[in-house]
Parts: sequence; structure tokens; C-alpha cells
Amino acid sequence: MMHLGLFIAGEGHHIAAWRDPGVPDTIANQDIDHYIELALKGEAAKFDFLFTADTNAVFYGDTVAEWCQTTQALRLEPLTLLSALAVATKRIGLVCTATTTYLDPFHVARLFASLDQISHGRAGWNLVTSSAPAEAANFSATAHPPAAERYARAREFADVVLGLWDSWEEDAIMADKQSGLYFDPDKLHRLDHEGEHFQVRGPMTIRRSDQGRPIVVEAGQSEEGRELAGATAEVVFSVQQDLGEAQAYYQDIKARAVKHGRDPGAINVMPGLMPVVGATRAEAEDKLQRVQDFIHPDLGLKRLSSILGSDLSDFDLDGPLPELPASLEQAGRQQVVIDMAKRENLTIRQLYERVVGIRAHRVIAGTAEDIADDMENWQQAGAADGFNILFLTYPGGIDDFIEGVIPILQARGLFRTEYEGMTLRENLGLEAPANRYTAARGAKAKRAG
Amino acid sequence: MMHLGLFIAGEGHHIAAWRDPGVPDTIANQDIDHYIELALKGEAAKFDFLFTADTNAVFYGDTVAEWCQTTQALRLEPLTLLSALAVATKRIGLVCTATTTYLDPFHVARLFASLDQISHGRAGWNLVTSSAPAEAANFSATAHPPAAERYARAREFADVVLGLWDSWEEDAIMADKQSGLYFDPDKLHRLDHEGEHFQVRGPMTIRRSDQGRPIVVEAGQSEEGRELAGATAEVVFSVQQDLGEAQAYYQDIKARAVKHGRDPGAINVMPGLMPVVGATRAEAEDKLQRVQDFIHPDLGLKRLSSILGSDLSDFDLDGPLPELPASLEQAGRQQVVIDMAKRENLTIRQLYERVVGIRAHRVIAGTAEDIADDMENWQQAGAADGFNILFLTYPGGIDDFIEGVIPILQARGLFRTEYEGMTLRENLGLEAPANRYTAARGAKAKRAG
Repeated sequence: MMHLGLFIAGEGHHIAAWRDPGVPDTIANQDIDHYIELALKGEAAKFDFLFTADTNAVFYGDTVAEWCQTTQALRLEPLTLLSALAVATKRIGLVCTATTTYLDPFHVARLFASLDQISHGRAGWNLVTSSAPAEAANFSATAHPPAAERYARAREFADVVLGLWDSWEEDAIMADKQSGLYFDPDKLHRLDHEGEHFQVRGPMTIRRSDQGRPIVVEAGQSEEGRELAGATAEVVFSVQQDLGEAQAYYQDIKARAVKHGRDPGAINVMPGLMPVVGATRAEAEDKLQRVQDFIHPDLGLKRLSSILGSDLSDFDLDGPLPELPASLEQAGRQQVVIDMAKRENLTIRQLYERVVGIRAHRVIAGTAEDIADDMENWQQAGAADGFNILFLTYPGGIDDFIEGVIPILQARGLFRTEYEGMTLRENLGLEAPANRYTAARGAKAKRAG
Repeated sequence: MMHLGLFIAGEGHHIAAWRDPGVPDTIANQDIDHYIELALKGEAAKFDFLFTADTNAVFYGDTVAEWCQTTQALRLEPLTLLSALAVATKRIGLVCTATTTYLDPFHVARLFASLDQISHGRAGWNLVTSSAPAEAANFSATAHPPAAERYARAREFADVVLGLWDSWEEDAIMADKQSGLYFDPDKLHRLDHEGEHFQVRGPMTIRRSDQGRPIVVEAGQSEEGRELAGATAEVVFSVQQDLGEAQAYYQDIKARAVKHGRDPGAINVMPGLMPVVGATRAEAEDKLQRVQDFIHPDLGLKRLSSILGSDLSDFDLDGPLPELPASLEQAGRQQVVIDMAKRENLTIRQLYERVVGIRAHRVIAGTAEDIADDMENWQQAGAADGFNILFLTYPGGIDDFIEGVIPILQARGLFRTEYEGMTLRENLGLEAPANRYTAARGAKAKRAG
């Protein structure tokens, strides 16, 4: 069976979606009623989880002109948003990003543990390191740390969070009115973590949840990111656009899990996918292009120039990308964009549509059958355990997928028609995690026996 | 009109409430369904707001034996809890504590701004400095900072948070599909705070809320705390137990507000109050004593010894408190307890009932009329603009107050029968705060005109 995440957004994931006449004027990125409606749609369609990304900054400064043509400067804080959605829903999982670069592990462990209680075991943490240097300026940091340093901190951060989530053994709470003992003091544990980046005593102030602890989600692409995912992730969001590359990535992540002593089935690899559904392929392509045309050329040029680190305003929008020097800091990311332009012979306009408009997500514009075929093909070919679904516009983009594609996947036996369990962990088909202290107690009893 | 806060808790505010046979076995400190039930009760009764306190630590270590006889090691994280309650309610305010000692101002500003959006303008921030040294050990801090240092940080923290909450002018968002301009770049503002403790660029990623910005709540008792409250608080929680002291405190806070150029009505002083309602005074006193009797003497002695910094286990429970040396760090707090014991001639048992059982909150055990009279008296005497209500047990303690006392207050015209407005600010009778940039723009236009 395939697993599906619903990447939630206000008006859609396309940068100009808000300008589409089909998107209600009232939709704002920060309207809770909109998110409740979207969450209920996702739950009715049996998505495994809702997902929301995060950035601790408005990308402001020299580039404000880029952002005032988008809704992206505004977003609800994810933990508060998902806590609100936890009450509005019953079965769908609730996953969001929290950075290891500018937060404290005690807070992150606590916020997600609390969401896990409030949702009765449906929380997931997307562990990231901050890629936006603009965040540093909001946290009294003199400089954004380089990737290697961020990953070293992230590894230790994950250790602390996972440790804190084991504070309470499952049967620690006794609530014995007669004796007056509320919990068994032998089943509450300090962490006493003494590391390079953190010293954290614990224990956590929140009991063990219905799913043991929140699901850990990652999106590792770099060597460091893949290693951390192999060691700790239970869901991996991937970005590969090509089947061969996606298969290689899938193999690599599973192999790393095995290397870390884990079952390859303990990680679900879920590539991002933006499906654009039409009655015909041509209609779907028209739908996509109609939204692409809402990108103001100023916005497209400014964002693309910013991504590439070179001012493109003097070049012909409908001509090819000129030769550009790649800056050192962003060299990897810039090269991907430059390679894409060359490989596919894209004009500057076509390139910004891809990179700025749909933000480099994988898009399939086609009939519902085309999209279901493609998803099935990726799953069968060992490139995906499921997909993280993005939508072009709201409500059209998501309704088309739910009404058109999901019934085909269900008819083929590839996607659930009812939730398997009450917790996110059960629905993702993941085993209950052992509490380290309970496990040690069991091992000791076994030896003694 | 009087303002009423409802201090929410699991089984009640008494340390042994959970042992009361009238408290359902299923109530746990971390059960969201319980909090939703409680929130709906509070809203039906027209309380101004729900309040929840916070501590970023289980008080663990040498003293675990004290805590395993209580529910206090467990609590939901307040921002996630209140976000969940925001969806379950429509009119009641949502106030919680967040410390300035171990959090970053950008996060605090963002979490409360998000709650303020989700609740459509019903959020309030109880600004505190951490009094629990145990928190330091969870945040990689080598030592808990002394009070003066914590307050210096808190003052700057408040400046940053209030500054970030002004990032977006009220009419900044245009959402003009035709031109493609989503917001007016002149109406989004960086903070560029460069202070001793924090450097924060901003702007906030969340627009201005229906009430402008969250309400600021404080509980200043020390000189530093009172000064900060005079300068920034809109609600003050006070702890005075004696009418004369409460009047003096009230006068002092209002005078400080005036000194800071504010209207004295811009701060609501709300003493804490635990009403215990009975058909007769004797019945009410019995109700209270029945719960006091659930304090296991071990728990009472250990907690009292810990508060006083002296081991009391060798002394007679029903004898007087011996002469004790006060430790330097906690001297002020310990002296209050020692003075109380002397003034009222309390035995050790009676003292722990007061200090450990009801945690030094002001209690009135009496008929509904007695309690309403007392509340009216405090308000008329200039000691209170309202009260922050704690309850002995759930559901009895709160139901008795709602069914018994609130109708009397309403009949006397002292408490609302319907909410005045949609936002917490409107219900508290506070004026809409000016956005500093909008105000500056107005002043400039006036000069130019």
C-alpha cells in the first residue's frame, strides 16, 4: 500500500496561485478556517498525514520587492496550527518542520510530545537544519553556521529529543488514589545528556503517547543528511524528479538504514509530487500554464536572479540563460538550476516558471489515469513508498486529485479506503518503538531469569 | 464590571485533589478532552479568559519522592494546549505563561501571534522570568541567573516581542490579484533590534491580529517585577491575601502605570482566589478539609522542608514550626511562610496544608453569598479589577462557583451576562494598541498637513 502526505498551503503551492480567479479572495495564508477545511478534505480522502513546512523569517532586506508579490512572508507557526487541527480532525497525521539550528531540543521535544498527546498519537517532526541564513538575524546569531556544523548539531539534537521522549515508561502512571502514589518513581528517567552542543537533564514533562513517540521525518539530500536519515528517520521526503535518480536515492536510504541496524521497512521514502489533473493531458497542461502566466515577470526575474546569484534583468525573457558564474556558497543548488536550463533548453521565462513558480517540485500534468499510472510505476519500480502531495491551487488543485486520482489508486488496491489504525505510526505501518529503559529492564529480567 | 480569569488545571489546584473520590479516575493532567470540557464550561459562564501556568521542568533529582505523589510532573505545553482550545471555543480568551529566561523572543512573539490568529484575537502572554532553577539544567545553562539579571533580560525581551508584533501595519495586506501586489512593502517593517541580550532583525512572519496584538499579562511582586508591570502589563495577577496589602499593591501598580505615561485603566489587577462553596460556611470548610486530609504526611513534610530549605521530618506534625535559619537565595519566600506560621499560630500540618496543599493561594470557604460579598468588597475597596479563579477539585470546585457565585455577581450587575466583544482586548475593556509605524505615519502626515 502507498502512503500519501498532504502538503498543506493557503492558496496553493504555486508562487502565483493566489492570483488565480478560481482561488477565493478570502483565502489567506493565516486563516485557520481555511486550514480546517483543507484538513477535513485530507482526512475524508484518507491521507496518512498533513504536512507543513516552516521558516523562521520573512525573506526581507534587499529583496523585499520579491516577496511583496507573494504570500510567502506570512504563515502560521506550525505547532500551534497543527494543535488546532488536531481538535478539528480524528485520524489524519500531523507533521511539521522544526529546525535544529535555532531552537532548543527541550522545547522541540516538548512541543511535539504535547501535540502527540493532544492528537492522541498523530504527531510527526520533520527534523531540518535551517537553510535560510535570514533566520540567523532573528536569533541573535552573528552568522548562519555552515552545513557540516549544522548537521553535527542536528545529530546531537536528535539524540536529545529521542532521549527525552523516553522519559516516561509506558506504565509509569499509577494514579493510585488509595496509596497516594501518582506515578512509579522507578519509571520516570532523567536523560543527563552531556554533549558538545547540549547539556540536558530532563526528564520530559509529558508522558509517553499512544504511538510511543512522534514520528521522525527528514529530507536528507547531502551526505550528512542521508546519514542522519538512515540512522533516525521514519519518513523521508525526497526531491528526485527522474525515476532512475529516485530509485538510486531509495536504495541508498534503505541501505543506510540497514547499516544502522534497522529494518529497511522502518523508513518510508516519499517523493514530493504536484499532480495537475485534466480531462485530457492538454487540458492539464493548460491549467498549469494558466497559473504560470500569473507570475509577474518582475517577480520571476528577481527570484531567479536571487537564486542564481546573478542579475538577469538585462537579458531577453524568451531567450536562453546566459553563461553564469556559480557563487561558492550556493554552488550546488545553482548548478542544479543551470543544468536543468541546459538539459531542457529552457528560456529564462520557462526556467523561472519551473524554479520560481512551482519551486522545483516534480509536476505531472495529465489525466487522472496518467497520474495514477506514474505513481504506481514509481512505487513498483522501487522509487517510492508513497508521495507527499502538493497542489497547484486551492481548492481546484487538491479537489481534482482527491476526486480523480485517489479512487483509481483505491480501485487498484494501492491506497487505503479506511484508516488502518488510530495513530500515525499504525497508519504508516511502522512498529511501536521500544522505550530504552523498559527494554533494559526486560533484558535485565531475562538475564536474571 | 469585574473581570474573571479561569486558571485551568487537570483535577484541581489542590496538590492532593486527584485523590478525591469525586474527581473522575480518568482525569489526567494531559487529557485534551478534559481541557475542552473545562474550556466550554468557562465560556458558557462568560469568564474573560482561560489561564495556564508553565514550568519547563519536572522537579526531579533529589526530590523525586515529593513529586511522585502529585500530578505536577505532567502538563501539556501551554501554546499547543491553547491552540487546541482556540478551535473548541469561540469567545473566551486564552492566556498562558512563557518564560523570558529560557526562550528566544522571536519564538515567543511568533507562537503567541499565531495563537492570536488561530483564536481570532483572543491570545494573552503571561510574561515571567523563570523562578525554577531546575529549568536551567534543561537548557544547557550552567547556572540559573539571579533575579536582577533575569529582569534585565525580561525588559529587553518584552521590547523585542512588542516590536515584532508591530511588524505588519493593519492595512498592509492588499491581495490585489490584478496588479500582483500581495502586500504593501511600505507597511512591513524590520525591527533591527540591537540590544545587550538580543539582536533581532524581524519582521514577524504573522500579520496583525483582530485585537492588534496579544494581551500582556504579568505577576510582578518584586521591585523589578512591579516596574516592568507598570511599563508593559495589561493584566496583573497578584497574590496578596490581606485586603490592606491588596489595596496598597493595587495603588502601587496603577501609580507605576501613570508614571510610565499610561492610563491607570490600561492595567487590570486580578488577584488569585480559590473559592470553596458550601450551603453553609461549615460545609465549605469541611469540603476544604476533606481534600487537605488527602495530603500524605510524607508529601506535606517533604515539600514543606524543601520550600523552607530545612528538614522537618524529626518534628511533631501537630506541633509548632521550630526556629529555622532562612537560606540566602530563597530568603524572601521562606520568610513569608515562616511569618504566616507565627502570625496564625499554625502547626506544621496546618502550615503544609496552606503552603503545599493550596500552594499559598488565597482561599475563601463559605456560602456563595459570602464569596460574592468578599469579591464585591475587594473590588469596591480598590483592591481588584477582577479575580483569577482557581478551583479546589474538578468538577465540583468549579461547578460550585459557576452555579453558585457567578449568578449572584450577575444579579448585582458586577459581572457580564454576555461577552462585550469578539476579542479578549474588547472583553477586558482595553483600548486597541496603536501600531508604532502607523502612528508615526499619522504624526508625519499631520505635520505635513
